[in-house]
Amino acid sequence: MAVGSGDLGTLYPVPGISMAAVSAGIKQEGRLDCVVFSLGASANTAGVFTNNAFCAAPVTLCKKHLAQTSPQFLVVNTGNANAGTGKQGMENAQKICLKIAELKNLSVNAILPFSTGVIGEQLPVEKICKVIPEALGNLLENNWLGCARGIMTTDTRPKAASTQIQLDGHTVTITGIAKGAGMLKPNMATMLAYVFTDARIEAELLQTLLKESTNKSFNRITVDGDTSTNDSSMLTATGESGVQVTQDSTDFIAALEKIYINLAQGLIRDAEGASKFVTVQVEEGANKEECLALAFTVAESPLVKTALFASDPNWGRILAAVGRSGIQDLDIEKITIYLGDVCIVENGAVSATYSEAAGQQVMDQEDITIRITLGRGNLTETVWTSDLSHDYVTINADYRT
Amino acid sequence: MAVGSGDLGTLYPVPGISMAAVSAGIKQEGRLDCVVFSLGASANTAGVFTNNAFCAAPVTLCKKHLAQTSPQFLVVNTGNANAGTGKQGMENAQKICLKIAELKNLSVNAILPFSTGVIGEQLPVEKICKVIPEALGNLLENNWLGCARGIMTTDTRPKAASTQIQLDGHTVTITGIAKGAGMLKPNMATMLAYVFTDARIEAELLQTLLKESTNKSFNRITVDGDTSTNDSSMLTATGESGVQVTQDSTDFIAALEKIYINLAQGLIRDAEGASKFVTVQVEEGANKEECLALAFTVAESPLVKTALFASDPNWGRILAAVGRSGIQDLDIEKITIYLGDVCIVENGAVSATYSEAAGQQVMDQEDITIRITLGRGNLTETVWTSDLSHDYVTINADYRT
Repeated sequence: MAVGSGDLGTLYPVPGISMAAVSAGIKQEGRLDCVVFSLGASANTAGVFTNNAFCAAPVTLCKKHLAQTSPQFLVVNTGNANAGTGKQGMENAQKICLKIAELKNLSVNAILPFSTGVIGEQLPVEKICKVIPEALGNLLENNWLGCARGIMTTDTRPKAASTQIQLDGHTVTITGIAKGAGMLKPNMATMLAYVFTDARIEAELLQTLLKESTNKSFNRITVDGDTSTNDSSMLTATGESGVQVTQDSTDFIAALEKIYINLAQGLIRDAEGASKFVTVQVEEGANKEECLALAFTVAESPLVKTALFASDPNWGRILAAVGRSGIQDLDIEKITIYLGDVCIVENGAVSATYSEAAGQQVMDQEDITIRITLGRGNLTETVWTSDLSHDYVTINADYRT
Repeated sequence: MAVGSGDLGTLYPVPGISMAAVSAGIKQEGRLDCVVFSLGASANTAGVFTNNAFCAAPVTLCKKHLAQTSPQFLVVNTGNANAGTGKQGMENAQKICLKIAELKNLSVNAILPFSTGVIGEQLPVEKICKVIPEALGNLLENNWLGCARGIMTTDTRPKAASTQIQLDGHTVTITGIAKGAGMLKPNMATMLAYVFTDARIEAELLQTLLKESTNKSFNRITVDGDTSTNDSSMLTATGESGVQVTQDSTDFIAALEKIYINLAQGLIRDAEGASKFVTVQVEEGANKEECLALAFTVAESPLVKTALFASDPNWGRILAAVGRSGIQDLDIEKITIYLGDVCIVENGAVSATYSEAAGQQVMDQEDITIRITLGRGNLTETVWTSDLSHDYVTINADYRT
């Protein structure tokens, strides 16, 4: 299952970036499972990574390399997360970097490695090293779709987004890909996302833009509340357009955020077993933190999620989730809850205007918005999530078989 | 599905307590859905209730009545939670109390009402009032099984526990019943539990014993992290045995706690869709709070729960859940994780002694213990949970149909 058409629109090349997707046969023969991006010598790259204490070996190595030099290659494998793999896992991640460094005559820290897949099995590093020459010999300017497919695990379709804007009389391009469908509640980053632009952006600003965009996109989605060990979100600016972006480049920043939100929503639309795309919006909060905590409580409630799966306007479960969210001194008399445009709860009880038929009409749709107003302030937060279906259970019960 | 035999053993009468279970046809004709307990005039009763801000009308009324006088009757209906029902919900809960008060010539606040079932629909109060005379006319000393059945909703079997101990040369009895299978993460109480003893216990101590016992039992279980709007846990001491219990009555307190843990575990063994009974034990924590937070993170992880359902020793998901639990400065090198007696993680990675076959052998069992040692202190917490199965989704997608 997946929600919506999954149409990606035009995916523009980003001058300075080339890419390849090949098959190393990590989990399945013939499946695209190894992706390489060449960034060029002058690109700046920023990264944000999972806050999971058991972060994967490639995440640790990425952070180290990124602190040392500007990366020139990104290499991603699927089918194996290289997490919970200890010292040998770290050596394996290094071997892959070393392979590219040798072939391209680069320092090893100019390569950033990424892995996604099953946790706790050692990486079949020879298989990956074996196909790296093939990848490096087939770098193309526009193989976004192949690469978006090449980083998929339980994703049923590739996620990519692209835009072009005019800045200072020049065309500036932003294109990105992402993956992730389960174990998905990013915390400072999502599962895997790679966004590229040919704008020229200084390293410090690039990191700020990445953090802020990630915060408004990947950090606002949840499938199952499970933060992965391998989350990594990378933003590369090649500078090839010659256009300098500053903190005042509001058009560029808005376009970049739109790409991130597009990718984040794409992950939810293709979440494991998803049949609904759900927006949980909390308004009139006293602070951002309580809005976000409440939105995530509703978005992660298994009972709300199974009701969404059943298209059942069982709003009592939303009310119960709001009530248990732990906000101090919550005055239920001041709360209103809307399903789409239909007011379901006001004055601490079911709305006098509510009818089951009206609730049902909203629930029958694929895209559903749950809006909760708290009457305690003027702050708002939005979170996106999916429903909890039989397919989610099937996918995660059978994942390793 | 349900885990284990569900054998309840002998259920002893508690002198002073009589009870009846009748059918009001609230949701289904002929189903036992209305239970009445008569406590006698000299009994002391303590109660703890849900922390959900949207607590149900009967919960609010219970708290009010309990603060005013010693209750003489408890009345419980299933099929309708009378939550999210506003002013009318409160009036309906009062009507039921009034009915019993009139028939027994009591003050209305001597009656405590309880409801469980669908949230947000008005209670069919006439149906309930109509069968109350029948219930009052059929009060028996030993109809525990009928009453345990009469408070069930999605429960597949009745939950009850009973024990007798010798104190000061007298036999003292403790017997209780409970219900709850979903929307189950009690917070100061469980869905519904009623425990009775013929010991004589002062009101203040009774409240303390109830709080402490609940804290060690119902507050340590979770099915889906969803705290109900209707949780209520009541403890009544009739005093009929003539035996005075004090805070030094360690044998009695131990027996009482055992009853509570038995009931709490009974709920998990019959949790919605449960095929596994899972104990999550966190040891060597710096404080109780971090142990408990970590245990609940593992116990509520949809990925851990679906792996348990599949009997898949996918320990990487346990490691990932531990890693995201938010404990400050967690040193993964010091953590060990055990599946049953099998060490799966040590020194930050898969244990050198681990084999898939050994992990599989543990996972194939119905009762599974996940033990996590943190190496940061000497505190321990234990939480009980169930797996996440197709039946959980089916039950909760079809709940209102």
